[in-house]
Order: sequence, then structure tokens, then C-alpha cells
Amino acid sequence: MRSRQSVAELGFLRLDGRKKQPLVKQLYESIRRAILQGTLKPSCRLPSSRDLVEQLSVSRTTVVAALDRLVAEGYLQSAQGRGTFVSRDLPEEGPFAETTSGSERPRTADLTIDAAELSPFGQQLELEERMVADRGTPKPFCPGEPALDAFPTDVWSRIVRKVWKTVSPADLSYGEAGGQLGLRRAVADYLRTHRGVECDTRQVMIVNGTQQALDVVTRVVLKPGDQVLFENPGYTSARQTFAKQGAQIVPMTIDAGGAKLDTSVRQACKARLVYVTPSHQYPLGVTMPIERRLEILNWAARSSGWILEDDYDSEYRYGQAPVPCLQGLDRAHRTFYVGSFSKVIFPALGLGYLIVPPGLTAAFEQALRIVSRPASQIDQLVLMEFIRDGHFGRHLRRMRKTHGLRRRVFVEELSERLGKRLQIIGSQAGLHCTALLKSKKTDIRAEQELAAAGILVRSLSAYYCSSTPRAKRQKGLVFGFACATPAQIRRGLAKVAEVL
Amino acid sequence: MRSRQSVAELGFLRLDGRKKQPLVKQLYESIRRAILQGTLKPSCRLPSSRDLVEQLSVSRTTVVAALDRLVAEGYLQSAQGRGTFVSRDLPEEGPFAETTSGSERPRTADLTIDAAELSPFGQQLELEERMVADRGTPKPFCPGEPALDAFPTDVWSRIVRKVWKTVSPADLSYGEAGGQLGLRRAVADYLRTHRGVECDTRQVMIVNGTQQALDVVTRVVLKPGDQVLFENPGYTSARQTFAKQGAQIVPMTIDAGGAKLDTSVRQACKARLVYVTPSHQYPLGVTMPIERRLEILNWAARSSGWILEDDYDSEYRYGQAPVPCLQGLDRAHRTFYVGSFSKVIFPALGLGYLIVPPGLTAAFEQALRIVSRPASQIDQLVLMEFIRDGHFGRHLRRMRKTHGLRRRVFVEELSERLGKRLQIIGSQAGLHCTALLKSKKTDIRAEQELAAAGILVRSLSAYYCSSTPRAKRQKGLVFGFACATPAQIRRGLAKVAEVL
Repeated sequence: MRSRQSVAELGFLRLDGRKKQPLVKQLYESIRRAILQGTLKPSCRLPSSRDLVEQLSVSRTTVVAALDRLVAEGYLQSAQGRGTFVSRDLPEEGPFAETTSGSERPRTADLTIDAAELSPFGQQLELEERMVADRGTPKPFCPGEPALDAFPTDVWSRIVRKVWKTVSPADLSYGEAGGQLGLRRAVADYLRTHRGVECDTRQVMIVNGTQQALDVVTRVVLKPGDQVLFENPGYTSARQTFAKQGAQIVPMTIDAGGAKLDTSVRQACKARLVYVTPSHQYPLGVTMPIERRLEILNWAARSSGWILEDDYDSEYRYGQAPVPCLQGLDRAHRTFYVGSFSKVIFPALGLGYLIVPPGLTAAFEQALRIVSRPASQIDQLVLMEFIRDGHFGRHLRRMRKTHGLRRRVFVEELSERLGKRLQIIGSQAGLHCTALLKSKKTDIRAEQELAAAGILVRSLSAYYCSSTPRAKRQKGLVFGFACATPAQIRRGLAKVAEVL
Repeated sequence: MRSRQSVAELGFLRLDGRKKQPLVKQLYESIRRAILQGTLKPSCRLPSSRDLVEQLSVSRTTVVAALDRLVAEGYLQSAQGRGTFVSRDLPEEGPFAETTSGSERPRTADLTIDAAELSPFGQQLELEERMVADRGTPKPFCPGEPALDAFPTDVWSRIVRKVWKTVSPADLSYGEAGGQLGLRRAVADYLRTHRGVECDTRQVMIVNGTQQALDVVTRVVLKPGDQVLFENPGYTSARQTFAKQGAQIVPMTIDAGGAKLDTSVRQACKARLVYVTPSHQYPLGVTMPIERRLEILNWAARSSGWILEDDYDSEYRYGQAPVPCLQGLDRAHRTFYVGSFSKVIFPALGLGYLIVPPGLTAAFEQALRIVSRPASQIDQLVLMEFIRDGHFGRHLRRMRKTHGLRRRVFVEELSERLGKRLQIIGSQAGLHCTALLKSKKTDIRAEQELAAAGILVRSLSAYYCSSTPRAKRQKGLVFGFACATPAQIRRGLAKVAEVL
């Protein structure tokens, strides 16, 4: 090691015994900063530790500890008998010589990211920062929110307590991708009995919600440029998932029978996947009859296409039995079936399921291992117990009543107050109600005016593919009636009447 | 509607009042099955409901309810005064006419998926199903597992109870992508103080573990074919994440200073991203000195490349202070910083964090909204409180002691019993210890023999890129010492000594 004449002037070092930070750390930080800023140049010799002890009035232990740490991290080098030097392996000018303070950084506003630095997926994301805030209590009439005020937190938290009382190190450890077998079995049993799903345990993948299920399916089966048949109007988040990954969206018209996969559509495209909500079309609310379902199944079987059945709120049908799902009719094993506990337990739980065709169980377990870690194991245990002990069944029955009542109040009140302006469509199911808007006002305008009055609704025309001309879009409002109490529904609709 | 002469023979209908299933459902199911199997053909007229009541000895209510449901779902059509028919919109031959029973499906083993039906990502996944089982208690010496037996479940579950006592409908609802602002703030504070990370609240993305962070970064910044500089040997799961998405892995040699990003490597490739574990290289355990860190930062700043700093177990350093992270030195904002609560809280929690450059916060919030739903809100609240009330700091200090003791016992015992066969390398840090194997046996063979004896270790040579010739790989074993008690460590190493 070359020795240099220069001995560093360490007058800039200011240690303060009254500070909370230990002196060792203060000394370490100041020398480190001086090196990074170029105040102390490479190969520069430091005063001896004895000199430092004197200059700084600290103990030898403090000096030695700080220097040792700086040596260990490569800032300093020490040579037996020749003292301690700033590492000569560092760049001559000091890495941050150009600025005056080590903590100065370019301002965020000045940072522009060049699109070429991102992937095709990344290039489609917004770069502009907006305000965010933690969400508050769901406002009327936010679609998709269940009656969380009616959730039996006492029962749930009792199970949580019980699980924590008997928790083992194994329960705290890493879980298997795809979810705990016990929960997968419970979900398979439930879906077979109540939804007509045909599956065994391994076909059930526990995911952290519908969105993850949609995303993983997209990644495993769709190539960029592949066509996806999509309901128009349809569930915007799902459309985004496909589109942002490079899929080409082919819109399917929705009529009283749901998505129309007719000959013209089939011939016009070579779609790889069809996305449908047959139990309760989102947002129009219609239920797909059997002949349409068979049409879709035949298309998939003949063209080796895939079906993605999003059964997001099928548990809630009022006055009729739930319609068995499409997946259970699929003898060619082309269907991915997606559901979530967000609407039947609570959204914050972040648990859902994806049923994959039998030949793809290993592939999806592996895919899930790559894209994320399984959802909280403890939550999986709690949910498993909630299902197994019959609480889930009871809760569902109660929620059907609660939601059914809220729907009735909503429909009655709306017909009475707004019957001339809004016409409810769709079946008696789910957590939302779509009403066509009969006025000169656009629904987007209505949404904005209502938002200004503190009422949250979604305009129907916003659910259409961007390629659909304005004139071809139905005008309407999508109301979530489930998260509002009857009193809130009445007050809310009174306001809607005022605004419209 | 055309009427047909034929009236269906419904002799095949068998209703059983002793079954648990309600008679309405039994009747609905049998007619539905008969239609799907082609026993009842399209346009075929059903007996009148009066006849059905007589034939089946059930109430008129039962018959009407079942038929109504079948009409609603599109299986039957009814015409005023002319009776009820099987829908003529169904395919003539019956959708499932080819088989004898509606519940018969092709056997899973017969299902082969054609690679062309999957995406490039999907084509790289295994299709062969293997046994899975829920994991048991972590075995010695499973790498990466903390001392879960020492986790303060009492403190944690007390907070869980408290959170559940005061839970509001807002807490049960959907959360914001990127995580709760309170938790993001707490994580930012912790990382600034303890890890030298430079970030504000919005740069913190709460993810469900390191794996999701790696995956999202890959998707947002890497195009298929992009080169990634990767530590060799290195963390296999991270390599998979890049490789399976089409990135080309460029190996970097690891020496005593960690990854070498030297001129030859830099010139040989146009890498877009470098993946490093500077605090504690995985699996070799070395710590990267400052000049190497600056080299990497300079490379990223000059070439507009990205750095992914995986700081997976940096909190655990025994006898030395933790080394500040690389991200805090990055004045060009090219670093993604990834960490996880798996090793400092517990893995089953499924929470981690990703610190993104300031210009990309909105893009990552949106990306996370697309790829998944936020981790359990309740768990986020519990963790936030655990950090805020000082439990996290206390827990970390205790765990440093516990893990430090286990490491000491492990090192002493190994040196004594196996000093001639195994030579420990790397710094005194983390949850694993890598030892070079001095024997004729390959490390893969040693791993297998140990597994047969109930001891879990990983062979070092398995961490290399597949392009690395066998002869160029170091032979060794990677031991996780943290999940075993001192007694288990002694017993375990006695067995290792026997086997080797």
C-alpha cells in the first residue's frame, strides 16, 4: 500500500455527547460522509487513533470501534505500523464530489423516467403521482362492497383467538404455493355442493383475490397479441389485466342472455380466451341461459380456447336458487373458474380462489410460487375453521337476507322517487343494481354531480371498451346497494333524486 | 313456438324423500341431467305439472318450483296453454350425448396440454403433478427460517385481539394498492433509521413478500430478452423470476467482495438490471465493500440501468453493526430495494416491502392494483401497531441474541466435529452458514444422503447458473442454523458427521 504524506484535517468532525445517537455511530457517520463527499480523498492518511482520542475527547474504544467498522465496510484500509488510510480503491474525485451535501438528491419532480427504461407493461402505467389516502368506510352506493356492518366480527375474532392459542412454529413458517391443503379441500367441497363446480383439491389455488387469479391466468395462457373475447360492457379491472399484458380485446355484445358468442364474432377472430360472468353479468346483471353456456363450451372445446368464468357474487340470489356454474358443465376442461371471499367474508381478508383445469395444477402451483408468496397462513387457518364449523353457511344465509332486504328497499325507493328517470335492469342478484338513465344528461355527468353531493355511483357507459362509440353505449348508473343500511339507502336516494 | 307430439317419458326420474337434498333440487337436477345427456331432446314436451304431481307423488309446489328454475336457466320453455318443452335453442343431439353419464369426465392422466396453448411463461412451467403436503415444522438445517419457536406469539396475538376489538367496517373493506399509509410510513421510518434507506412514504410498496417484489419489478422494467446481471452463485428463486419472464441471465463472479461488476462483464453485455445482495451475499455470505457498491451505482447511473438490492436478512449481524444499504447511496435513483418481514416477524404473515425510485411510485401502485390485491388489511394494522409500540425493535434485539447464540453453537460444534471436512465462509450475519466441502463426495450427493438421514441442507453447487461448468462450482453445504435450538444443532451436526 502506498503511503501518502497528507494527514487528514478532521476539524469538520463534530461529535455531540448529548445526542441520542451513540458517539461511535456519530464518528462513523461523519467520516463516512466525508469520504463519500470527497472531503477525505482516497489514500489520504487519517490521524492516529491516539490523536483522534485527543482531538475529539472520546474514548479509545469509541475511536477503534468506528474505524474498525469503516475498515470492515471498505471505506478505510489499515496497514500494520503505517496507520489508517482512506481506501485507495475508491474513485479519486469522491463519489459525490459534485454536490455539497451528502443528503442532497435530485428533487422528485425533476425525475422523468424514459419509457424505453420500462417494459411494454411498464410503459402503460401512469407515471404521474396523485394523492392517496387510506380508504374510509365504504360510501353509498359503492358497487361491490358487501354489508360489512353486518359481519360477525365476534365469531371471526373468536376463531382468530383460538387459532393463535394453538399456533405452532409450523403455522408461522412458509406455506405451500396454492394454499393450505385443508383450506383447498374445504373450498372444493363448498364449490362442488353449492356452485356445481367439478374439481378436486389440487385444482383449487388459494390466491389473494380475483385480481391475482385473473393476472396469473393471463400470464400462463396468453401471449402478447392474443385475442380475448370480452363482455362489453364488462368488468373494467379484468379488461385492464388482459390489455396491459398485450392482449387484444374483442368486445362481445351483451343482451338479455348475457355475452353473445355468435358466429360473426367467432369467425371474426381467433380468440384464445373468453372472459364471462354468466351467473350475474357485470355490470348489466343478466344471467346467461344454458344454450349460451353450451355455445361457449363448444367454442372452447373446438378451438382449444380457454374460458375464464368470473363468478364474483353468485352466492347472492334473492328469491331464486343460485345458477350452477359453467365450469361444472365443461367436459373438455377448458375453464378457469374464479371466485373471491371478499364479498362473502370481507374484502380486507384478501383471499380468493382459482379453479384450474386438472392438467394444469402443477403449472399453476409453480406459477404462484414465482409471482408471489401464499396469503397469510394464519388467515387461511381461520377461514378453514370458519367454513368447517358451519359459520360460513350460516353467515351466507344471513347475508342473503340482509342483502335481499337492502335490495328490496333500494328497488322500492328508487321506483317511487326516481321511476321516471331510472329503470332497473338485471336479475335479482348480487350486490349491485344497474339502472338505465332516461334523461338528456350523460351518465358520466350524473356520476360527477352525484360525487359532488357525496354519493358514489358508477356510470354505465364507463364500463364499455374504449373502441365503442359513445352513441352505442347504454346510459345508466351502477349502484351498490349492499353497503348501505336501509336508512342510508333512503337518504342516499333522496339525494340522488335531488341531483337528477 | 312449434309444438311436438312426443311427451317425455319421465320414468327415469327417481326422487327420494329420505335424502338430505330437498325434493325440488332432486327434481331440478334429474331433469337438468336428462337434458344435458340428451335423454330429453330439444323441443320435447314435458308431461303437465298435474301429471308430474301424480307420477312422482310430490306436491304441486315442488313441481312448479323445479320447472320454474329450469325455465329461468334456459333448459325449458313454457308456452301459455301448450305446456312446457325442452328448449329448442339447445343443440339437437344434447350437449353430452356421446357419453352415458353426465358426471363422467376424461381422466386427468389423459389430459395433455399442448405447449402452444400456453404463453412463453406458461410453457416453462412444469406440467407433471407431484405430491404436495402442508409443510410441517421447519427441520434443521433449513436455510432462511428464523427461530419461530422464539416468536412472541403472546404479544402479537394480544395486538391481534386489540385490533379486532376496535375493527371498523372501513378496516374490513378493500385497501389501497401499495399498502396502508400508516404502515408505509412506519416502514419508511424504520428503514431510514436502521438501514440507511432514503425514501418517503409513497416510495414504500407493501407487498406479500420478496417474491412478489421481484416479480413486479421484473414486469415493470424488463423486456423479454433483456440481460440481467446476476450473482453466481445466487438466490435461485430470484434467478427463476427473471429467467422465466424471458430475461437473459449474465452471471457475475462472487469473490470476497461479493459480486464483481468489472469492466469485462460491463463490456460484454448491455444489461438492464443488476441483482445484488450486498449486505450478506446469498449463499456465500460475504459483505460488499464500499468501492464495489460505488462501482455498481456508477454503472447504473451511466447506463440508465436498474439495481435490485435484495436486503433479505441484513438485520442480523452478530458482533458488528449492520452495513447501511446501497439504496441510500444512490443519487441517481436507479435502485429498487427489497426486504421482507418473513425473517424478522414470521414467514406466514406474508408481508414484505419494495422501495421504488421516486419517479415510479404511481406506476408501481397501479401495477400492484393490476397484479393482485393488497395483503390482509388487518395484518397490516397489527404489524403497524407492533412496530409503532416498540415491540418490533425489542423483538429484533432479542432475535439477534437468539440467532447469534445459535450461530455460535453451530460454528463451534461444526469446527469441532467436522472441521476437517467443512470450512465455514462468509461474515457473521444472517440465518445461514455456508461451509465449503472438502471431500471426494459431491455436495449434491451429500445433500441427498443427509436428507435420507432427516437432515435438510442445500448443496452450494445448486445455486450456480446452469451454464456454469461443474468444475467451476464451489462445493459446499448451506446450513440454516436459526430454526434449530442449540440441542437440535448438536444432534443435527452429530448426524451430519456420521453421514459425511
